[in-house]
Amino acid sequence: MWNDDPKIEEERGNGGLNVEILSVGTELLLGGTANIDAMLLSRRLSELGLNVRYHTVVGDNPVRLRHAVELARLRCDILITTGGLGPTCDDLTKQTVAAAFNRKLVLQQSVVDSLRERFRQMGREMTENNLQQAMLPENCTILPNECGTAPGCAFESGGVHVIMLPGPPRECTAMFDGSAVKYLSLLQQGVILSSTVRIFGITESRLDEMLRDDMDSMENPTMAPYVKENDCELRVTAKAETRERAREMIGPVIEKLRMQLGDLIYGVDVSSLEQVALDGLRERGLTLGTAESCTGGLIAKRMTDLPGSSDVFRGGVVSYCNEVKESVLNVPEDVLAEYGAVSLQTAREMAEGARRVLHCDLAVSATGVAGPGPDREGNEAGLVYIGLAAEEGCFVRRVSLGDTGRERVRNLAAGHAFDMVRRWLNGLPLEDPSC
Amino acid sequence: MWNDDPKIEEERGNGGLNVEILSVGTELLLGGTANIDAMLLSRRLSELGLNVRYHTVVGDNPVRLRHAVELARLRCDILITTGGLGPTCDDLTKQTVAAAFNRKLVLQQSVVDSLRERFRQMGREMTENNLQQAMLPENCTILPNECGTAPGCAFESGGVHVIMLPGPPRECTAMFDGSAVKYLSLLQQGVILSSTVRIFGITESRLDEMLRDDMDSMENPTMAPYVKENDCELRVTAKAETRERAREMIGPVIEKLRMQLGDLIYGVDVSSLEQVALDGLRERGLTLGTAESCTGGLIAKRMTDLPGSSDVFRGGVVSYCNEVKESVLNVPEDVLAEYGAVSLQTAREMAEGARRVLHCDLAVSATGVAGPGPDREGNEAGLVYIGLAAEEGCFVRRVSLGDTGRERVRNLAAGHAFDMVRRWLNGLPLEDPSC
Repeated sequence: MWNDDPKIEEERGNGGLNVEILSVGTELLLGGTANIDAMLLSRRLSELGLNVRYHTVVGDNPVRLRHAVELARLRCDILITTGGLGPTCDDLTKQTVAAAFNRKLVLQQSVVDSLRERFRQMGREMTENNLQQAMLPENCTILPNECGTAPGCAFESGGVHVIMLPGPPRECTAMFDGSAVKYLSLLQQGVILSSTVRIFGITESRLDEMLRDDMDSMENPTMAPYVKENDCELRVTAKAETRERAREMIGPVIEKLRMQLGDLIYGVDVSSLEQVALDGLRERGLTLGTAESCTGGLIAKRMTDLPGSSDVFRGGVVSYCNEVKESVLNVPEDVLAEYGAVSLQTAREMAEGARRVLHCDLAVSATGVAGPGPDREGNEAGLVYIGLAAEEGCFVRRVSLGDTGRERVRNLAAGHAFDMVRRWLNGLPLEDPSC
Repeated sequence: MWNDDPKIEEERGNGGLNVEILSVGTELLLGGTANIDAMLLSRRLSELGLNVRYHTVVGDNPVRLRHAVELARLRCDILITTGGLGPTCDDLTKQTVAAAFNRKLVLQQSVVDSLRERFRQMGREMTENNLQQAMLPENCTILPNECGTAPGCAFESGGVHVIMLPGPPRECTAMFDGSAVKYLSLLQQGVILSSTVRIFGITESRLDEMLRDDMDSMENPTMAPYVKENDCELRVTAKAETRERAREMIGPVIEKLRMQLGDLIYGVDVSSLEQVALDGLRERGLTLGTAESCTGGLIAKRMTDLPGSSDVFRGGVVSYCNEVKESVLNVPEDVLAEYGAVSLQTAREMAEGARRVLHCDLAVSATGVAGPGPDREGNEAGLVYIGLAAEEGCFVRRVSLGDTGRERVRNLAAGHAFDMVRRWLNGLPLEDPSC
């Protein structure tokens, strides 16, 4: 039997509480989607100071699910399940988990009432199978679902806390943030607070090299790196008795990082480089335009991903072929002939042309080789010139990003364009920080 | 002890071979990244007719890893590990897995030689810790790493097959496709072949409704839906003694789908709608341009994501503000004043303007409300007009995508633009298929 194995026991009691995330869904085992719930919950749980020890995925199969629950209760203090709560799933997760912990499922009238209200608002009739969603383990804490119909629940049994969340990532994280986190915070003493420092213009390995000793030696606050597609971030997390005290503990760590990393840090607790550029432009009442060759619209796309970008973004020209560079942006024919499309001179003419044609205060440009492989003129893949034209003149940054895939080259090139905007706005040097 | 539990045994021997994917890496448990390896491998394994029963994630911890391996060997026929093979990981996975199966790690001279050669080519010196990567279980099949330095391996022990793959998704899938799949195919009889039918212009739930009975009743070939961000796909998979026989079995299923779905199917075994548009344009020697408002560069970006897009794509104008619509695309001021920016008339003028300004054969346009919330003129979020201008005239499609998030609205609007191009190329009706 599982609990005869003494090895399992030694994993418990290392100080923090141990968590297992058990995701239920055959579509995960078929590879239809990645386990996004496990990622998003793990991030939040780690920030709360909980130790996520295992992720497990099983299909919609009661026998294997039961085994997985039995195993989790032996090796963890907190079991979080995701998925299998909806009306079409025959409540597999609830039934199986409740049975494993010897709990009956009972009809929760408060859930029935709020389901009826929800369906009334949608102008739809509630079918019988929706009542299944109101069946929850007896004596549980009900976790309301703000984004869907199936509620979750939490209960404790024999020292193990069980939290059941829905599968769709939006519902799962909304329920976690909205109510599960409160349940978990009662299991822990004190407050946990995080700040995220966002960085552009340094490689992951270089950052790791610079900070590894600090990160390894820190206990509270802790510091952990997260590598994103376009830049790096460092999460600083403090545990303290009060929110204020936690904030006081984080402050000096961020100050030290500012000393170490200087203007490579583009923001603390900000969402993205383009958001920082957008906010800075809006604050100064300035407008932006783009002229793109190798990025092919990506700079404009990333700016217009942001709601409210129309406050500052006037538009852009994607001049993928040389004729459009000449006819729309007025890049002189002889510049293209003498220096080529991938050149400092063309990047400058593109940015200045966009500024004139689009009537904007600032214009950024990108021309380079996205790859794979060199271009017809023999320029290596990953070579990109990024221009910024302002009233006082034009700046061009040259970067060599390597033949590392079109997507990466284009994303980084767009990042450099936004980095130049935020540097210009802050009076910082505009040359490539990593050169 | 694990093997005393009779319940574990009943899961075995249901006909197909059962697989567990065990991913090793603390960064997964911290939520730094999703378990992409497990998703990509599951898709491939399912297509091979293997039953993926469990995904497990453990951190870089030898005790918990050992437990997970012991458990997997009891409940599966094939254990696939990902991660923990690199020189900096102290070979945690190899050591632990080899020990669990009573195998010694031995230095594989062929790996040492190819590592030396690889480092020589990169012009770098091979450090001592890189030799760790050449330590592999005795009597194993070496799986070469085409995209990195750490090789994988495969072996059989007591009826369980073990395959160890590297963690980075690109290395992991390249090794799977390049050599692990050959190892696995020897364990199975016959051939498994899949075809993917790609569909645009129908919702997931409508597709499911139409085909659910067929999908549930099919055994060989099988048919399974995969919902993508921008469209839907159906995978048809046949198991047969020969490749030819499998192909013959798939044919009629696809024919039936063509009868049911008609021109909603934009391709079989194609990669994307934009690729289909690009290929069609290239074949006909035609050029494309774009005029974008609400999509803000996304149509151009998606086209230029594709290598070789410069063969047909001349460029685009992102006319985010009305002045740029007028000054660059020559949309008449009175059209904007009378009908507004979000209108059939403006979409037409934008497409025709782009066709003139960019000197292209076809131009597509998009103007609408990405959201969240309605625009200043009261147009609801999700309302988008998509235009296509050709020599013989201009077509405009009106779609209502709902206030379903900027990203979704913009992605679907871009999809409609490419759908109009491929419909125009094939002489199909251009109006919205779902209207």
